[in-house]
Amino acid sequence: VKGGLVIVGGGTAGLAAATRARRTAPTLPITVLEQSPHVSLGICGLPYLIGGQIPSLEDLQIMPLARLRQERNLDVRPLNRAEALDLRGRTVKVRDLVRGHLYTLEYERLILAPGGRPRRPAVPGVAGENVFSVYCPEGALALLDWMSRESPRQALVLGAGYLGLEMAEALRRRGLAVHLVERRPELLGGLEPPLQERLVAELERGGVQLWPGRNLEALEGGVAGRVRRALLDGGESLEVDLVVLAAGLTPEPPLLEGLPLRRGAQGGLLVDSRAETSQPGVFAAGDCVEVEHRLTGRRVHLPLAGPAARLGRVAGENAAGGAARYRGALGTVGLRIFGLEVARTGLSRNQARELGIPVQVETVSSPSRARYYPGGGPLQVALVARHPDGRLLGAQAIGPEGAVARVNTVALACQAGLGWRDLEDLEAAYAPPFASLWDPLALAGRLAQR
Amino acid sequence: VKGGLVIVGGGTAGLAAATRARRTAPTLPITVLEQSPHVSLGICGLPYLIGGQIPSLEDLQIMPLARLRQERNLDVRPLNRAEALDLRGRTVKVRDLVRGHLYTLEYERLILAPGGRPRRPAVPGVAGENVFSVYCPEGALALLDWMSRESPRQALVLGAGYLGLEMAEALRRRGLAVHLVERRPELLGGLEPPLQERLVAELERGGVQLWPGRNLEALEGGVAGRVRRALLDGGESLEVDLVVLAAGLTPEPPLLEGLPLRRGAQGGLLVDSRAETSQPGVFAAGDCVEVEHRLTGRRVHLPLAGPAARLGRVAGENAAGGAARYRGALGTVGLRIFGLEVARTGLSRNQARELGIPVQVETVSSPSRARYYPGGGPLQVALVARHPDGRLLGAQAIGPEGAVARVNTVALACQAGLGWRDLEDLEAAYAPPFASLWDPLALAGRLAQR
Repeated sequence: VKGGLVIVGGGTAGLAAATRARRTAPTLPITVLEQSPHVSLGICGLPYLIGGQIPSLEDLQIMPLARLRQERNLDVRPLNRAEALDLRGRTVKVRDLVRGHLYTLEYERLILAPGGRPRRPAVPGVAGENVFSVYCPEGALALLDWMSRESPRQALVLGAGYLGLEMAEALRRRGLAVHLVERRPELLGGLEPPLQERLVAELERGGVQLWPGRNLEALEGGVAGRVRRALLDGGESLEVDLVVLAAGLTPEPPLLEGLPLRRGAQGGLLVDSRAETSQPGVFAAGDCVEVEHRLTGRRVHLPLAGPAARLGRVAGENAAGGAARYRGALGTVGLRIFGLEVARTGLSRNQARELGIPVQVETVSSPSRARYYPGGGPLQVALVARHPDGRLLGAQAIGPEGAVARVNTVALACQAGLGWRDLEDLEAAYAPPFASLWDPLALAGRLAQR
Repeated sequence: VKGGLVIVGGGTAGLAAATRARRTAPTLPITVLEQSPHVSLGICGLPYLIGGQIPSLEDLQIMPLARLRQERNLDVRPLNRAEALDLRGRTVKVRDLVRGHLYTLEYERLILAPGGRPRRPAVPGVAGENVFSVYCPEGALALLDWMSRESPRQALVLGAGYLGLEMAEALRRRGLAVHLVERRPELLGGLEPPLQERLVAELERGGVQLWPGRNLEALEGGVAGRVRRALLDGGESLEVDLVVLAAGLTPEPPLLEGLPLRRGAQGGLLVDSRAETSQPGVFAAGDCVEVEHRLTGRRVHLPLAGPAARLGRVAGENAAGGAARYRGALGTVGLRIFGLEVARTGLSRNQARELGIPVQVETVSSPSRARYYPGGGPLQVALVARHPDGRLLGAQAIGPEGAVARVNTVALACQAGLGWRDLEDLEAAYAPPFASLWDPLALAGRLAQR
């Protein structure tokens, strides 16, 4: 195979692809290009590096470079940036960032997994020296360094998706006052009102000042290049010592600009169920792709590690000559925020409405343990199903424990086309330390059929 | 309705039946007979009363008697023992244990939920004053009382089902040395070897001395009626200050002896999917019944609170004129034992073999959190599926966290007839504090299809 397989990106999707390709084709030359110094790093752990639960960036290393090279026989090249792609000539122009020179790699198959591009609000001051993006290790390290040098007291986090929430908690753990600004009224992309209220209360209990439904209008400086004040479109002016951008990713990293590949409505690459783009031999996975939603068949941009790894595996297997298929994503998300677990999967009520799907929503609350057993607390679960046939479309849950577990079970139910009746029948384990007699899923299934 | 509905038993099944019957028929006269002083008590909490996590028996009260009577309009009669049933004449002879007299109740519909009968080994000394059964509140209270008076130092627990394991831990928490004797080589009715080994190690770590594959041969006394030594059939002689019987229940309580009702191979009442016995108008639920196994269609005795409550509801609804159906039990069980969760559902490898079902078993171990996140530990999951079609039949799991959650998800998969492929596709929530990137269920599903 002339030139073999080249993978652009050494993150979750790229590494999953490389590993799978190696298994599929033991002797295929595989090159992994990564512009940062970090390959195979668990970037979902960055908020815990900031929060102090994880002592150093090295702890996030999933597999050391030497093992990737030796055991998996992957030609992994950190600090090598793909700068231009010639899809017709099947070459990649690569910058060696250590020595500075450009070189050209030929490939027979290409996997694009360069990641997305962090959204930066187009406001004055956003380039300030104390404005950080934590979508990459460099941003997190810069933030840590700045915190240790400047001892900031007040922070603004922009965006209340899961990363924004995790970062708000991380900064609180470091003792900072935290403003959390979110342009939409909903957190986490839309929870049922009682669940959202619980999450808001928990954030407030944790000392996070929430500003939902607000846009950032400007970041104003004091001394040279340093932001000191954030202006919101509600007229508020907040004193800040640092700003963290966590407003999400677009699927459009600079490398992919202008490439003749089919794209979806949100600008992400479109791939078929084999993870192949509109250009034969070119595959893609990760945050630059729009994946098929498992329940709706529509293309969605879901920059999440789970779907990235799964589609990456499919891309790797197929690029190496296999025949794997991707069966779509649900968008299952979970996080721990202060004392609560929060999780969601599939469609929310509003997402279903936008798609014209009539739904029935059941919301139940039940104790996470037997009422008489110490610890635990109310576990709230909201379930969304198509009306009138009851086919499950999504779930959200929040509570001190058990929320992720319930959402995962419903994720399976959604994938398999199950409905209220199946949930009603769920025979979950009962014991006082971790359940009440009627599991909330069974309860919701029962109530929905009344 | 002449005589209305009489329910024998105020435990989980009886109360579920009463509550559901009341909802179904708001004016139906409903009488609940309970021989003990306790109605609506969470008896699954008794080990935690012994262990000290729960301060008093009153804490286990789920609904107070006054509320059952007033809000639910149930004629609940604790300390009233059903002594004889005349199924032809539709009467119950009841002993009022407070005033001592007998009276006769007429009924139109009857629900039998008197519970099972604790197994007592037929060995000398089993009637000793320091031999306790903790299947009822009275036994637990007697044990507590004895412990506070006699300050025992060494205990023997007979039976390593979930109650025996919970009791072994409870007694360790009280500072006693504990011998745990189980006649079978397997714990919890059969776990895959690596899971069983983990459980055994945890028991030993917790200070429990395990004697698997041993029968109790005799309990020998010292002073008047008090057991001081236990002899096992391996020749061992163990010094003991008290003995706890936790060797399971048979479905044959004294009240039901000799009644002309159809029974299964294990002696339990047989009911149809409406929870009706072979005698029209007489329903049954709880530990005295053999239920249909959801996967095999066979009758099994599963003395568990979950199936008891579910079948109780069905009995209550139908006895009150409704049309509910029970769809079978899986036997999902979970417990926390020292630092581990252990859970199982459906069929084990050996159970499937006995039924002549060829199976494939996959056992995986994966970290319960991201490897770099503090806490957690290995989560081991074993999955059993029919060969070669891959239909899931059961699961077992053990780990510091997440075991019950995985087993519950597989319980749903078993009920719904899902297979390896569905598990492989499971898009579980990923975040470092509670998951690794590949859920063990997805991993097992993937490996099974290799």
